[in-house]
Amino acid sequence: MPVLQNDRFLRALLRQEIDYTPVWIMRQAGRYLPEYRALRKKTPDFLTFCKTPELACEATLQPLQRYPLDAAIVFSDILTIPDAMGLGLYFTEGEGPRFKNPIRSISDIAKLHIPDPMDDLGYVCQTITMVRQHLQGKVPLIGFAGSPWTLATYMIEGGSSKQFENIKGMMYREPNSLHQLLTLLTESVTIYLNAQIASGAQAVMLFDTWGGVLTTDDYRDFSLNYMEQIINDLTWEHEGRRVPVILFTKGSGLWLEMIAETGCDGIGVDWTIPLSQARERVGHKAALQGNLDPCVLLGSKQRIYEEVQSVLNSYGPGSGHIFNLGHGILPSVPPENVAYLIEVVHELSQVYHRA
Amino acid sequence: MPVLQNDRFLRALLRQEIDYTPVWIMRQAGRYLPEYRALRKKTPDFLTFCKTPELACEATLQPLQRYPLDAAIVFSDILTIPDAMGLGLYFTEGEGPRFKNPIRSISDIAKLHIPDPMDDLGYVCQTITMVRQHLQGKVPLIGFAGSPWTLATYMIEGGSSKQFENIKGMMYREPNSLHQLLTLLTESVTIYLNAQIASGAQAVMLFDTWGGVLTTDDYRDFSLNYMEQIINDLTWEHEGRRVPVILFTKGSGLWLEMIAETGCDGIGVDWTIPLSQARERVGHKAALQGNLDPCVLLGSKQRIYEEVQSVLNSYGPGSGHIFNLGHGILPSVPPENVAYLIEVVHELSQVYHRA
Repeated sequence: MPVLQNDRFLRALLRQEIDYTPVWIMRQAGRYLPEYRALRKKTPDFLTFCKTPELACEATLQPLQRYPLDAAIVFSDILTIPDAMGLGLYFTEGEGPRFKNPIRSISDIAKLHIPDPMDDLGYVCQTITMVRQHLQGKVPLIGFAGSPWTLATYMIEGGSSKQFENIKGMMYREPNSLHQLLTLLTESVTIYLNAQIASGAQAVMLFDTWGGVLTTDDYRDFSLNYMEQIINDLTWEHEGRRVPVILFTKGSGLWLEMIAETGCDGIGVDWTIPLSQARERVGHKAALQGNLDPCVLLGSKQRIYEEVQSVLNSYGPGSGHIFNLGHGILPSVPPENVAYLIEVVHELSQVYHRA
Repeated sequence: MPVLQNDRFLRALLRQEIDYTPVWIMRQAGRYLPEYRALRKKTPDFLTFCKTPELACEATLQPLQRYPLDAAIVFSDILTIPDAMGLGLYFTEGEGPRFKNPIRSISDIAKLHIPDPMDDLGYVCQTITMVRQHLQGKVPLIGFAGSPWTLATYMIEGGSSKQFENIKGMMYREPNSLHQLLTLLTESVTIYLNAQIASGAQAVMLFDTWGGVLTTDDYRDFSLNYMEQIINDLTWEHEGRRVPVILFTKGSGLWLEMIAETGCDGIGVDWTIPLSQARERVGHKAALQGNLDPCVLLGSKQRIYEEVQSVLNSYGPGSGHIFNLGHGILPSVPPENVAYLIEVVHELSQVYHRA
């Protein structure tokens, strides 16, 4: 593999010195880009798009061709694992992901198998290897998976949810069944992420989109503990370099100390908490990734400038910050605002990295 | 008006001594009750139901007839104010509230007027007076309103939202227009709540359902500051008794200190933060209301017992806690579980109130 030319993202995650703050954007390959919308038309079905390495590879690379981003992230979906387990993933216009065969009982759980990452999920690994070849060491490539809890919410609710009453009903009525499912998912995610690393992912991220709907105790027992197990069992080093792991639970501002104890290298932080407070509470245990409100990119350039300044200033001097949004970029964002955001992050952050 | 027989709810809000922890339930008059579903059939349209004092009064009283609750809350909707402003509120099956004429521009805002509470919103005041007559001093009656920020989200998004990109777009592009709308709503809510108090509401609650989607700074500037203005201008005393005010922002665990500074008497707390932590951070500044996860009521009696014990124990000894769910009760909850919850709260809490 070619030598990595821009390792600021990896260095920031390990809190090593850098010259400016690296930036990438959750869902940076996505609907706000006209070239993505054009590419997406090549196949009507979103899942087929994800499962075609040539298309997923091109989607991954599109934002990198347009912007000086400091990392790439493989184009895929968090629900590939439950799909490979046979739940029948499909996507509906406007309503998001759905499963034909959601989990309804303990007997449904007993029937599930751990997907083989190179066979059932081989298309993701192939995409990763293909992207690495095309990137030619320009920036590092991030692999990812959904957290066991978040995957379980979709598998049991059958899709997106507001109240999560099916999975929480199971949690409060038969917690052991839920733990059984989460254990299976933990093993599946671990194997899957290690296969992504073996295929060329240089960092990995766990997306725990729905951990924030739990009580503090339930978050620890039903989401965080399983993510900690995954982190412990991930490949530590590949291609002679540490493979850092980022843990992102949306709405986890109250739990940052607990999250930092898992041994993750970076913590994703949404916009509800100032980075100054997050940094003070996490200390030297982990880097922080975030935390601009995605809606700021709907504002004027002046406002984007001010808000970038505010996020950088809130984190303060020194390494350990990866600039990002607090959640995925919105499809309605003008692409030129993203160019401006990246320019401003690179420019304004330099002063925070001078010795 | 008859003498109040059970004032535990009001005393707990003012942190005065009581013999057990009072309990009421957000949306206690609602779809989980078969008698409510039967009553609801008397008129097909939900808004007409709310606007008919006889029906709204009966709905308010139904849970009181079934359970030994320690407070009643007037049956109404937070969107009565924007409806009275002419936005054309209607309700769709499954999708919740919608507006025929959402706010799209500054010129839409300029056209709005402050509703007359005794005329445009007279049906709510009439319901309150009617409920008070029927309650005969059994328990206190709570009045309520949506917070200015939360009302504005529905008015600008046209209904429920996931990303709030219309209102946040306005917030980041033309903050002054949004402040103009919020100022108008602040005045409207103040007048409305004072009319509810004059009509017989013995405590009032501000529902800030969507304040939690903001950054810390934006929450302070666009939601909390306006609620503080309302609290300052509310009728302090009525019928010779303090009229306490509860402020509830869902997802506000990070901001409790700031909320306590508003001068509210009670703070609604969702289930994501343990009450022990909330109490430590709020200190003697306010009572706490909450914070059982509504999904616990889908669990077994054993589990309900344990979770009630856990919430009571987390708050600890002394007055200042009103037991409630962290959000509204779910329609799928078995009514007998609510009876059990109330019984257990009353029984297990006594030990925390012995001198």
